[in-house]
Amino acid sequence: MRIEKDSLGELSIPDDVFYGIQSFRASKNFPISGTQVHPQLIRSFLLLKKAAAKANQASGVLDEQKAAAIATAVDELLKGNYLKHFIVDAYQAGAGTSQNMNANEVIANKANVLLGGKLGTYDHVHPNDHVNMSQSTNDTYPTAMRLATLILSKELVSELQRFSNAFKQKALEFDLVIKSGRTHLQDAVPIRLGQEFSAYQKTIEHLIGLVIHSQDYLRELGIGGSAAGTGINVPKGFREAIIIELKHDFEDSDLTLSDNMCAAMQSQLPMMVYSNALRTCALELTRITNDLRLLSSGPANGLGEINLPSTQPGSSIMPGKVNPSILEMANQVFFKVLGNDQAMAFANQAGQLELNVMMPVMAQLALESSMILTSALKTMRELCISGITANKETCEKYASQTSQIVTALNPVIGYAKAGELAKESIKSKKTVIELVREQKLLTDKQIKDLLDPKKLTVPH
Amino acid sequence: MRIEKDSLGELSIPDDVFYGIQSFRASKNFPISGTQVHPQLIRSFLLLKKAAAKANQASGVLDEQKAAAIATAVDELLKGNYLKHFIVDAYQAGAGTSQNMNANEVIANKANVLLGGKLGTYDHVHPNDHVNMSQSTNDTYPTAMRLATLILSKELVSELQRFSNAFKQKALEFDLVIKSGRTHLQDAVPIRLGQEFSAYQKTIEHLIGLVIHSQDYLRELGIGGSAAGTGINVPKGFREAIIIELKHDFEDSDLTLSDNMCAAMQSQLPMMVYSNALRTCALELTRITNDLRLLSSGPANGLGEINLPSTQPGSSIMPGKVNPSILEMANQVFFKVLGNDQAMAFANQAGQLELNVMMPVMAQLALESSMILTSALKTMRELCISGITANKETCEKYASQTSQIVTALNPVIGYAKAGELAKESIKSKKTVIELVREQKLLTDKQIKDLLDPKKLTVPH
Amino acid sequence: MRIEKDSLGELSIPDDVFYGIQSFRASKNFPISGTQVHPQLIRSFLLLKKAAAKANQASGVLDEQKAAAIATAVDELLKGNYLKHFIVDAYQAGAGTSQNMNANEVIANKANVLLGGKLGTYDHVHPNDHVNMSQSTNDTYPTAMRLATLILSKELVSELQRFSNAFKQKALEFDLVIKSGRTHLQDAVPIRLGQEFSAYQKTIEHLIGLVIHSQDYLRELGIGGSAAGTGINVPKGFREAIIIELKHDFEDSDLTLSDNMCAAMQSQLPMMVYSNALRTCALELTRITNDLRLLSSGPANGLGEINLPSTQPGSSIMPGKVNPSILEMANQVFFKVLGNDQAMAFANQAGQLELNVMMPVMAQLALESSMILTSALKTMRELCISGITANKETCEKYASQTSQIVTALNPVIGYAKAGELAKESIKSKKTVIELVREQKLLTDKQIKDLLDPKKLTVPH
Amino acid sequence: MRIEKDSLGELSIPDDVFYGIQSFRASKNFPISGTQVHPQLIRSFLLLKKAAAKANQASGVLDEQKAAAIATAVDELLKGNYLKHFIVDAYQAGAGTSQNMNANEVIANKANVLLGGKLGTYDHVHPNDHVNMSQSTNDTYPTAMRLATLILSKELVSELQRFSNAFKQKALEFDLVIKSGRTHLQDAVPIRLGQEFSAYQKTIEHLIGLVIHSQDYLRELGIGGSAAGTGINVPKGFREAIIIELKHDFEDSDLTLSDNMCAAMQSQLPMMVYSNALRTCALELTRITNDLRLLSSGPANGLGEINLPSTQPGSSIMPGKVNPSILEMANQVFFKVLGNDQAMAFANQAGQLELNVMMPVMAQLALESSMILTSALKTMRELCISGITANKETCEKYASQTSQIVTALNPVIGYAKAGELAKESIKSKKTVIELVREQKLLTDKQIKDLLDPKKLTVPH
Repeated sequence: MRIEKDSLGELSIPDDVFYGIQSFRASKNFPISGTQVHPQLIRSFLLLKKAAAKANQASGVLDEQKAAAIATAVDELLKGNYLKHFIVDAYQAGAGTSQNMNANEVIANKANVLLGGKLGTYDHVHPNDHVNMSQSTNDTYPTAMRLATLILSKELVSELQRFSNAFKQKALEFDLVIKSGRTHLQDAVPIRLGQEFSAYQKTIEHLIGLVIHSQDYLRELGIGGSAAGTGINVPKGFREAIIIELKHDFEDSDLTLSDNMCAAMQSQLPMMVYSNALRTCALELTRITNDLRLLSSGPANGLGEINLPSTQPGSSIMPGKVNPSILEMANQVFFKVLGNDQAMAFANQAGQLELNVMMPVMAQLALESSMILTSALKTMRELCISGITANKETCEKYASQTSQIVTALNPVIGYAKAGELAKESIKSKKTVIELVREQKLLTDKQIKDLLDPKKLTVPH
Repeated sequence: MRIEKDSLGELSIPDDVFYGIQSFRASKNFPISGTQVHPQLIRSFLLLKKAAAKANQASGVLDEQKAAAIATAVDELLKGNYLKHFIVDAYQAGAGTSQNMNANEVIANKANVLLGGKLGTYDHVHPNDHVNMSQSTNDTYPTAMRLATLILSKELVSELQRFSNAFKQKALEFDLVIKSGRTHLQDAVPIRLGQEFSAYQKTIEHLIGLVIHSQDYLRELGIGGSAAGTGINVPKGFREAIIIELKHDFEDSDLTLSDNMCAAMQSQLPMMVYSNALRTCALELTRITNDLRLLSSGPANGLGEINLPSTQPGSSIMPGKVNPSILEMANQVFFKVLGNDQAMAFANQAGQLELNVMMPVMAQLALESSMILTSALKTMRELCISGITANKETCEKYASQTSQIVTALNPVIGYAKAGELAKESIKSKKTVIELVREQKLLTDKQIKDLLDPKKLTVPH
Repeated sequence: MRIEKDSLGELSIPDDVFYGIQSFRASKNFPISGTQVHPQLIRSFLLLKKAAAKANQASGVLDEQKAAAIATAVDELLKGNYLKHFIVDAYQAGAGTSQNMNANEVIANKANVLLGGKLGTYDHVHPNDHVNMSQSTNDTYPTAMRLATLILSKELVSELQRFSNAFKQKALEFDLVIKSGRTHLQDAVPIRLGQEFSAYQKTIEHLIGLVIHSQDYLRELGIGGSAAGTGINVPKGFREAIIIELKHDFEDSDLTLSDNMCAAMQSQLPMMVYSNALRTCALELTRITNDLRLLSSGPANGLGEINLPSTQPGSSIMPGKVNPSILEMANQVFFKVLGNDQAMAFANQAGQLELNVMMPVMAQLALESSMILTSALKTMRELCISGITANKETCEKYASQTSQIVTALNPVIGYAKAGELAKESIKSKKTVIELVREQKLLTDKQIKDLLDPKKLTVPH
Repeated sequence: MRIEKDSLGELSIPDDVFYGIQSFRASKNFPISGTQVHPQLIRSFLLLKKAAAKANQASGVLDEQKAAAIATAVDELLKGNYLKHFIVDAYQAGAGTSQNMNANEVIANKANVLLGGKLGTYDHVHPNDHVNMSQSTNDTYPTAMRLATLILSKELVSELQRFSNAFKQKALEFDLVIKSGRTHLQDAVPIRLGQEFSAYQKTIEHLIGLVIHSQDYLRELGIGGSAAGTGINVPKGFREAIIIELKHDFEDSDLTLSDNMCAAMQSQLPMMVYSNALRTCALELTRITNDLRLLSSGPANGLGEINLPSTQPGSSIMPGKVNPSILEMANQVFFKVLGNDQAMAFANQAGQLELNVMMPVMAQLALESSMILTSALKTMRELCISGITANKETCEKYASQTSQIVTALNPVIGYAKAGELAKESIKSKKTVIELVREQKLLTDKQIKDLLDPKKLTVPH
């Protein structure tokens, strides 16, 4: 054991660990969930610290040796199993001071060792004075959180694009499958199965647009605001230097400095905008997934218009049963995303004066949702959507059965008269075309022109 | 116009109105929604003021003449169109001071007139010194709010009980309608339609229990806490006297005095508990209503197990279409109730120190939700549930078609073998019984004993 | 009474009313809330019907006389008290068929009368065949809903801009008021009051951006999709003609036709995107309003940094008390907006197949939220924000008292040593500058250079 | 590798594992979160399977040897590291079939080995035919979920009781600390700090009551309903036998059999009722925690009425800063609980017909929330609440400063006159008592009788 000291006094901590006294205190203070801070946030913090060291050097406040040691320390940490050094629970003190200090301490120790020092001494590189130089939890945390979220949002967008393509392919594949539309779950005018899938794809494109739009908010960084957004202790040139480093290290040339560092600190609106996008994805995808489960209901006693690939036995007691397992998993993920969004909303409005201290839970919510949503969509695409087939015969039977084909006769015989025909069709269980023939309302040619389900689904 | 004065100065207000300067100021300060405070809250405030006057008299701090004038004023107001005197918008200053003062002023003017005084003079009865005597907005508002909510909750319970009975009748009516169960929307073992309706009824009974349970929280009143829950300016005997009056006037002998008046003021938990009950109603009834819409889908291309009464044409373009209009209305009301509940949750946690100032919106949310939920259920019961009929033939077809009747063979031939049979049934579109006969797996007697759908739905 | 007939049979309706049998049925079917459909939606429906008549004429399916009669009918209705003709409750059948038919019937009757016909006969102009020609509830309702929402969103944006300016002015006015920052509600480094207000303004600008962004989604219209998005019964040229009319009548040249009419019908994502924007407004404005209430806490026992204008007496029992009444009203409106957004989320995911039938509640939610949010911000701006004054002395006292001015000494004496100074300051209740002087840590010039609160708040 | 077979075909799985082909398939199908199913649910499933084996034996459908092997297998698994056998992700197929089969397979293999069989052969004990005998996922999952939740709810109740006691002790300790009340965050009449803590304690008692009330819903079990609530394949006597086993194994004599097994399967209302209780805890505790953070604001520039124990340095840049770290952690946990509750609400309403397939996410939400809420409260109690001290002098200064002490003069000089005095006090910064003395409004004795803050806080 070695002894370290902070403003609350001395403490023994294990000899060979890279974290320091503040991380250790925090790990004892927060025995809450057993869940680690999300790896992507930890990684973003490390990269941010490296960028800050370089910017400090460029601004003339940190000597080259220390800056280089910090940068090298980060590089080496990222090469190995760096997660093991991060010991603070995901639920921790407000604002994430513990998380920031855990990064500062681990890097400081690593850098000291690189410069020939001993763990826990901080002779060469000090966690607060050097690794955290020109920074505060209050500007690094929101910066690292936005960057980590941005990274995962890009993975989500990539998956959404593949997901959209999977629907596009099905839209093409099912373009000639005529069926009955349903509004209010009641038989309506004909539609093509491909049109339904095309509509789903269109919605997914809108969702992609929403996520991409939200990324611009995440790119707006308040780094350099330090303790309260006023930039205390931040040297001239630091902000300009660090944004260049960040663009490079995070491979995103659109990152920008916020023009109001106080706002960037007190308002976590960018996280809310991103959460809104995730939420809208979850809501619209719930709707689409519900539709697919309904269309595949059966096999004998449901709509049975489409078939989902079988992925596993569906029941422990009912033999041979097959369920829409993958879609159900996805539905549950969507609900979880909606829950995380609700927590984000409460956290968002809870900021007070210069700071919103609810950031650690915000980061966890956004990163978890991004990850599970991306995984769920990937699985849903690979194991379900791509393998969907259509029951063309069933669909066509529905197209021929729907009484609402009479709608096409409105311009000819009027809405009221058409209504009587529809009611007769339902009551007699004869198709509208049969009735039209029986009652000689139209010639065969007219029937073909006016009542061909295929034609009725082609918009002008 | 007459001149009135308060601590902010003088103001001209219309000559012949019963409200006074503070109501008038508030009506100018809050031109927000054009929606009046809920009538039930206004009525509860009036009754509460009458009870307070009597309790003040009983406690020896208000003379008999004034007390009687206040009581008579309230009685006379309640006989007429008292709502016209209440001019403050539903969205108003925190805690509802304006609402309380509107009641105080209207009653004071009425009482003054009864005692021969002029409007706006308050010579005999003063809004603050007499009508509001021993009271504060901070204890009267939560008290009136809970009482008003309690009243509407009782109307909701009555309707829920009638609603439950409507399902009970259908459960009996449909007891012999055998159908195929569906789990995951996939064909499952047989069930009776009556069992489904019986399950809905059971859930509704649970909902009734939740609303009734929440009423006990609403009955716990902090009256007598006055400004901060410490009972400042409240004479000895007042609390004991007013609770007797309230039990009588609100016709509820279970009303109680909270044993912690500070808690009753700072925490609006009773409103949240009630909102939780409404929310659970909305969620479970959404589920049930969704089921009914699904079961009635068709007429040709849906499940078509039940028929809902037609209440109106379903489409402006599709002639003869009939939709589950009443259920859809109800669904929308349920969503609105869920929304109001969300606002209640934000309001509930927003209390600060001695007071939760978000009470006016809380009252509005709970009272609106109670009213529209009660109306929606009444309409749903009368125009939809009571008229549901079963398509017995369709149901029985489904019962005979489900491959999952093989489940009953598990104990005889094992889960794995039964699974093969189920798959064969689905593939060949032959019923399981047909296959069992073909393959001579069971004798006819065994088939009748083991695979009769009716028997399969009777639990031991 | 006159007799009208629809597909469900005959009904007597009042003689002289402009609505017809379907409106009448619906008014009886839905005795739910007593709340009318939002006026802006009714107006949008009327304008949309006029545009459709012109587009039908242009497409050659409606003769000039009928088209002109419909257009004139709409113009004349809009000049008068048209709301009285709209009798269907805000909670009504799914998809809003009743609302669409109410518009169709009122216009048809008006047009018939213009053409010399009698109420209820529909000899010249029929509600379904002519007013509703080439349309369905399923494409007109989402179109009218989006247009109505767009109109109110513009009023909201205008108010948000004025609201932002009010904060901008305060930011300038308070630019020289130095105070202590607070993070975690604990004393932090100095900041200027103007910086806080500037940050609020920046956030409001972001909110404006979000609302404006959402408008693009509202502008995407599925009109011409008719019954199921497939454009059945819609003549060639109709879509191109109607969008020109709509751009003109709704005074918005950026309106567009959706390139996927099925998606525009089944997905109400645009309403959700708009609701997300309102929600983010409500959340961020809750935060800001909470801050203002905290900063104005007192007068003797709170932070007392700013003064809000008095608008009304604050208590019925505590004389002379003044409360942040306007801010509290606004807070409650924000919570209501959050509630409406929750209902919107449930409605959004509840679409099924070709249609989302939850549109009537969606419209009501978005329009109510827009209106009360706009009103609340206007009132808050006029009666509160514009009149805020700063307690400069109190603020400066805080600036001098905060121990966290030691932060500026980190680069000189190191974080650890600075920490000891801070602790000594808190314990001894001496200011840091006093201690630095006593301990001769810095010269007077250094103190002036390094520890002047004004300088410490100027970022590089 | 060994080969196993199910209805979808053969698959190679690792040789020495206790899980089987269905678990393996599911682990491949759901690579979503990397989070295991909650241990408490796994344990409850194991105990439930043991109880079922005994009940099957008692009902005469399972021979003694197999039943004993299953029971012993469960006992032995529970003694070791049983979690390693459970390989299915927390996000999995609807209804939890994979989870149930994972338990069935692990137990079957363990039992086979006990009986001399080989892994993967199931010669003696078959996962479906024996371990799952008389059961379905559809009745075991909700049963195990409710039981697991019940267990964690009891831990929560125990902690809430200790938490309540911690507040009770503080209420006693602070009983003589007189301070100024604050309503609307504005100075109000005097109150004792102990009264505030007593009110918090009262609210916590209400919360305990809510959680306990919800437990009765969790105790109502649908076991024996098997596939669809109709009890197919469930022998006579099974239900009566298993409930006795469950009462014993889960150490809860109040467990009951639901009298409507269909309702117990299709409605997961008990989980919602429990979630409502957790939600109300989170909302009220957010309010209380916010209060404590506000009361401890400072040290120089805040209210500073109470001191929280220091647990760690509060800032990486501001030396010596101390924050309410523990309370902030708790606040974040409360928000997460609110988020989980939102997901529960969406899951609750998503049931369809015989089953709610969203159970796996429900279980995860309730169990996670229970655990982190219990941990957060324990930590908050031990590291924060128990160590709170009062700043008596500051509190008393506030009590003497509040102008609202004039309220006590209402009965003597009237509300209007008292208001003038209050305004004068605020303006002149003289205390009310000073003004009363100056203006000779009361004698010294009267002042002592009427305006002693201590007396003013004692309710009659």
